Amino acid sequence: MITGFSLLAISKSISTATRFDAINPATGAPTGIAYHAASPDEVAAAAQAAAAAFETYRQTSLTDRAAFLDRCAANIAELGDLLIQTASSETGLAAPRLAGERDRTVNQFRYFANLIREASWVDAVIDHGDPNRTPMPKPDLRRMRRPLGPIAVFGASNFPLAYSAGGGDTASALAAGCPVIVKGHPSHPGTGELVAAAITRAVQQSGLPTGTYSYLHAGGSRELEVGKELITHPAIKAAGFTGSLNGGMALARLGASRPDPIPVFSEMGSVNPVFILPGALEKDHTGLAQRLHASFTNSTGQMCTCPGLVFVVRSPAAESFIRLLDDLTTKTDVMTMLSPKIRESFLRRLGEIEKIPAVRRISGGPHERSTMQGDHDGNIGAFGRPTLLITDFAAFKQHHTLREECFGPETLVVVCDKADDLIAAAGIVEGSLTGTICIDAASASDTALAARIQSTLEPRVGRLIFNGVPTGVEVASAMVHGGPYPATNQPHSSAVGSLALQRWCRPVCFQNCPDSLLPAELKEANPLGIRRLVDGRWA
Amino acid sequence: MITGFSLLAISKSISTATRFDAINPATGAPTGIAYHAASPDEVAAAAQAAAAAFETYRQTSLTDRAAFLDRCAANIAELGDLLIQTASSETGLAAPRLAGERDRTVNQFRYFANLIREASWVDAVIDHGDPNRTPMPKPDLRRMRRPLGPIAVFGASNFPLAYSAGGGDTASALAAGCPVIVKGHPSHPGTGELVAAAITRAVQQSGLPTGTYSYLHAGGSRELEVGKELITHPAIKAAGFTGSLNGGMALARLGASRPDPIPVFSEMGSVNPVFILPGALEKDHTGLAQRLHASFTNSTGQMCTCPGLVFVVRSPAAESFIRLLDDLTTKTDVMTMLSPKIRESFLRRLGEIEKIPAVRRISGGPHERSTMQGDHDGNIGAFGRPTLLITDFAAFKQHHTLREECFGPETLVVVCDKADDLIAAAGIVEGSLTGTICIDAASASDTALAARIQSTLEPRVGRLIFNGVPTGVEVASAMVHGGPYPATNQPHSSAVGSLALQRWCRPVCFQNCPDSLLPAELKEANPLGIRRLVDGRWA
Repeated sequence: MITGFSLLAISKSISTATRFDAINPATGAPTGIAYHAASPDEVAAAAQAAAAAFETYRQTSLTDRAAFLDRCAANIAELGDLLIQTASSETGLAAPRLAGERDRTVNQFRYFANLIREASWVDAVIDHGDPNRTPMPKPDLRRMRRPLGPIAVFGASNFPLAYSAGGGDTASALAAGCPVIVKGHPSHPGTGELVAAAITRAVQQSGLPTGTYSYLHAGGSRELEVGKELITHPAIKAAGFTGSLNGGMALARLGASRPDPIPVFSEMGSVNPVFILPGALEKDHTGLAQRLHASFTNSTGQMCTCPGLVFVVRSPAAESFIRLLDDLTTKTDVMTMLSPKIRESFLRRLGEIEKIPAVRRISGGPHERSTMQGDHDGNIGAFGRPTLLITDFAAFKQHHTLREECFGPETLVVVCDKADDLIAAAGIVEGSLTGTICIDAASASDTALAARIQSTLEPRVGRLIFNGVPTGVEVASAMVHGGPYPATNQPHSSAVGSLALQRWCRPVCFQNCPDSLLPAELKEANPLGIRRLVDGRWA
Repeated sequence: MITGFSLLAISKSISTATRFDAINPATGAPTGIAYHAASPDEVAAAAQAAAAAFETYRQTSLTDRAAFLDRCAANIAELGDLLIQTASSETGLAAPRLAGERDRTVNQFRYFANLIREASWVDAVIDHGDPNRTPMPKPDLRRMRRPLGPIAVFGASNFPLAYSAGGGDTASALAAGCPVIVKGHPSHPGTGELVAAAITRAVQQSGLPTGTYSYLHAGGSRELEVGKELITHPAIKAAGFTGSLNGGMALARLGASRPDPIPVFSEMGSVNPVFILPGALEKDHTGLAQRLHASFTNSTGQMCTCPGLVFVVRSPAAESFIRLLDDLTTKTDVMTMLSPKIRESFLRRLGEIEKIPAVRRISGGPHERSTMQGDHDGNIGAFGRPTLLITDFAAFKQHHTLREECFGPETLVVVCDKADDLIAAAGIVEGSLTGTICIDAASASDTALAARIQSTLEPRVGRLIFNGVPTGVEVASAMVHGGPYPATNQPHSSAVGSLALQRWCRPVCFQNCPDSLLPAELKEANPLGIRRLVDGRWA
């Protein structure tokens, strides 16, 4: 069922020039399937097919497009256990976590299908004209969102389903009316191809142009080249990326350096600071430690919203909290990481952080080769040990490296001397997807302190969480999965929720357009019955 | 009343290190006021003051902020004739045009005041939680738009009022809750300072922090440096620019190359193609010629929406149309351009275009030094002669330079052999603020052809105009003043209308936030009574 060849506008690629293998990170063994990176000609062919498909696809009715998205959802769901097994063997992520991610991925297509059926996302605005106005007649103006054009999607290694071949970027771009070309992630090519095949089946079933969706295998010596050729192709009008700061900014620079620059939406690194207020610690240090431990070790700490920084004020409760967090972490076994490369980065970042004298490792044991386990063929898996570090606020202020993401199962507890240090800390954390404040809602002093932290923290995060953990991103219209740099390079955007769709659109205004030539959404009689702002009133 | 010193967070700058003069382009004579470019320390002081002001200003109520915008409007209106005379002497634009622009500028502040009073622009979305959902409780999520932070505004030379010290970028950013620092345009420093003083008076009258608004004189050897220091200052969170492609892209690169990249919204060059269909020409070639002549010579052709390309199909009516356009253009006297520098660019671009053998000058006469007129002191004004050029579709296809903007009173008529060439032309024009289609609405063939041109043209423009001219940008919610590159570098945005405000905002999500800590717009009881999307329904 997995062929190892790219899916180019439904037809299969044929280039065998660059071959690569996927590795099972739990064993270090190759998965045994030969994957073939798309050739430069194949990248160009996919881009041209997408440009051709755009002419038709952008004019599909919202109903037809929604039905197509529902078919994508159904086809992905139908992949069943094969998808979960393939993804697990390529990523080391546990089957239950992947099953949950699969459901989220399927629901994401359905969410966008429902969103576009309702049609208010086009943001239709009508200002009627007045030919008798002096000194100049007032023109009839009508605007709505229209799709940008073919979109390049760069999937993440840490979400092989929800942010990959058929992830949020793909689903939202297809919903907006944009063809999609996915540059497959080399660490889960089988998973990517299975999902891509499910989507191309939906393209066929829906009678859409073949260029509506393509999937490019990228690996080996062409791992970076495929993406570079794709994002610089003239047919591509925008790109979405989820991954590292370096990767995201490299793509943003490529997009900006084109003769015609295009927007690149990169969701990148995030430390997701957590502020635990004194009252909250006093009230339930046990629950807080348990929830934080579960959150920072979730999926081997490889979530964009992994809590990397925890701020507490020195107190007996704080000591108990740290002691329990230490116990839980010490008892947690080594965990499989996504790939040897990600394990290496994790160890390198840990090294940078632990080099600072005021940082102390509480639990986590040694990270040497001993934490890698071999199988009977001598292959070695990529394992990481959950690690709890501790430091004080003075060191946090002094060393910028402590404010940067450490991707993996690690969290750094910053013990502050006084409550005001929490506010000062909120003022120097970097842009982050989330910021969390834990309070005892019944405590007046917690609430007053929370308001001050919130005021300082809000300009630095996309989502402010109260009394929760940052992991777990609800697919909902009110969700913001974004934030100031370095969380993203586009603070206006969100990679999840209804705002995700808007990334792939631009506003178009129609002035004095004959009714027969207007899109249905803007016709005077409102044949779609959608909500519109007409002459300043919602109708 | 004009001091020649920058207005830094209400206090006047003191640096006299870099002095520059403004030139009256109609005479070439200096205006006689010594302007002093802001020093590096003064740029930094303004940025720091803006960052400090943001803490307070972003938390002002929408009512208070709207009242402040209304005061800005009133104070600018009160500048009266002095403003018009100063602007006219600095730009060569006629007093009636400037009076109209002043009214638009004043109305723009009032428009944004009304827009934020109504509050639906914050796009409040509430998804209630469900603690009993399995396997995971559903969190309560609420999101809205929040201001980005201090904004740098780079005004345009061609709109000394509507796109400058108190123009659309300034008004929309202040409306969004962002402090503004304007880098003054060196060709109209007196105009800029007068408007800036009116806004700073409004800041004082409204009891707002002094850093809410600053105006930096920039000229002489520091013309570029002031802007560079401003846009790279860590306190600045986004920038708006209106002007040339080179200028806009240079700023975009500066914004992207910061350690923390920021969004830069540049509105740049645009050719604004006009497609005149056979039926329309047949019906009223006289009216079309008159309206197009008025449009391309409006304000000496120095409007962002000046029609630079006109496509017609060869016919007797087309010949009559061109003959009349020629007559009108020949009879039009030389006109004052904004500055000697802009005149030079105009002549250079004309030279590039006229170098192509298949391009013929129909009217416009010689553009040599003879078209510059001297005053009795020997100063020389910056004049441009309205110029009508003609070519055929083959040459248009072949020479890319014909698709690029020529800023000034020039238009190029492209005579096509057949109707299909109009569609082909629509497929190769560059991204533009506007695209215009003129039809005889009663003609079935015009309407059918218009539909095909529209389909090809729409992905390339921000605003599609039927039976009108591109000049004249209505300040209305449905307006889009933007478009694909090179019209702008941010196809998602508009510099005019309600979308202009969104450039200075980002979405923030509040998860399980206690009601007391929520912004008023998101509190459960909806104390502001605003329109919100609650659990998928508008309430």
